[in-house]
Amino acid sequence: MAAGPATLNLTLGSYTQVQDLTHTITPETPVFPGYPPPEFETVRNFEEHGFYAQMLTYVEHTGTHMDAPAHFVEGLAFANELPVALFLAPLAVIDISERAASDPDAQVTPDDVLEWETENGALPAGAFVAMNSGWASRIDDPEAFINLGDDEALHFPGFHPDATGLLIEERDITGIGVDTLSLDFGAATSFDTHVTLLGAGKYGLEGMAALGSVPPAGGLVIVGGPKFQNASGGPSRVMALF
Amino acid sequence: MAAGPATLNLTLGSYTQVQDLTHTITPETPVFPGYPPPEFETVRNFEEHGFYAQMLTYVEHTGTHMDAPAHFVEGLAFANELPVALFLAPLAVIDISERAASDPDAQVTPDDVLEWETENGALPAGAFVAMNSGWASRIDDPEAFINLGDDEALHFPGFHPDATGLLIEERDITGIGVDTLSLDFGAATSFDTHVTLLGAGKYGLEGMAALGSVPPAGGLVIVGGPKFQNASGGPSRVMALF
Repeated sequence: MAAGPATLNLTLGSYTQVQDLTHTITPETPVFPGYPPPEFETVRNFEEHGFYAQMLTYVEHTGTHMDAPAHFVEGLAFANELPVALFLAPLAVIDISERAASDPDAQVTPDDVLEWETENGALPAGAFVAMNSGWASRIDDPEAFINLGDDEALHFPGFHPDATGLLIEERDITGIGVDTLSLDFGAATSFDTHVTLLGAGKYGLEGMAALGSVPPAGGLVIVGGPKFQNASGGPSRVMALF
Repeated sequence: MAAGPATLNLTLGSYTQVQDLTHTITPETPVFPGYPPPEFETVRNFEEHGFYAQMLTYVEHTGTHMDAPAHFVEGLAFANELPVALFLAPLAVIDISERAASDPDAQVTPDDVLEWETENGALPAGAFVAMNSGWASRIDDPEAFINLGDDEALHFPGFHPDATGLLIEERDITGIGVDTLSLDFGAATSFDTHVTLLGAGKYGLEGMAALGSVPPAGGLVIVGGPKFQNASGGPSRVMALF
């Protein structure tokens, strides 16, 4: 049985626009190295069955998807255990796309958070803080999206652990999101941002789309998170109202 | 690339409560006879990998899920092609649970629609009309949820094709939803409600949860629909604000 109604943690604003923040998952969708690509099988078709359906096989960390606390910290919440009240949050978009265009190792730093606040006011309670690095425009070019260097390291932007620590310790956030393959930048040799964020019971979103099409402040993110048993995360339909 | 922002078709109300309308998908989740059950495989674990992830395999019509127009009508929209503006809609809940308690073949009829309007006023433009038959309480008892009779027919409630026709032809709806395995009632020998609804380019939701926990009128449904390529539908995170 689903839990009963819960009180919304936020006061909704007056919104007139909606923006899809989700990439379409295809057999070519880039996944973190080591994961198999998603598979699509047509199991019902019009000729034989009179209707059409697919069977899907994928690792939970495919496409625009959630990382639940249980992905990195044993005993913390699975994605399906997160209450839906956490799936609506004030959306803050930190744009580092100019820096990332010339430096694929760019990270969201504490200074970026402070600069966002200088321009937009204090982060609202329960904010969801998303990085726009411009990486979403590479989604149809998996090699450029993954960006494996000659040094065998990945090179794409992410949240610096210090910025994540600031958001967890000194602000009140619901989660963070990136438009790349990982919350930690590609060249990271450990998963400090993952551990800091998920260890605090917050969730992350990876592979977000179209963050350049929403305002940096004042919007609402809606997260259609996965509800599979014991989910470490999973494909999520994410949208913004503004 | 994701499409740009779209204008919301509705004026949002003032909501204070949120209700999850989604069942958790498990290996035991009841599916329409003939479909395989969903499979869960743990592909990353803390001992070996330092983190945890599953691989999932399922037919798109599993759990609380969407039926897209392309499920029944070749050439119409796949789930991933539906614009997100259609994923927020005024929610109307038609409660036939009293009748369904004694008659598993109960259907939402045109009279039920008219009675809802007598009690709640005209269906709002773009309404999503959901049937609450009480069936969601059977979700953990797959045999009772599927309810295969000695006559080899399925016995669970659904929308009568005449009610679906009324909603499509004489009202302005976004879609319809049921808390059972199918938009058409279980004993149907053809899929007239599917064809009428999906053929009109509308979407359906099957296996909805907790419809008894939301008001019959005045709420907003939010549908986190699937975004897999060529999706005939798929598991969706559905919630209501009221």
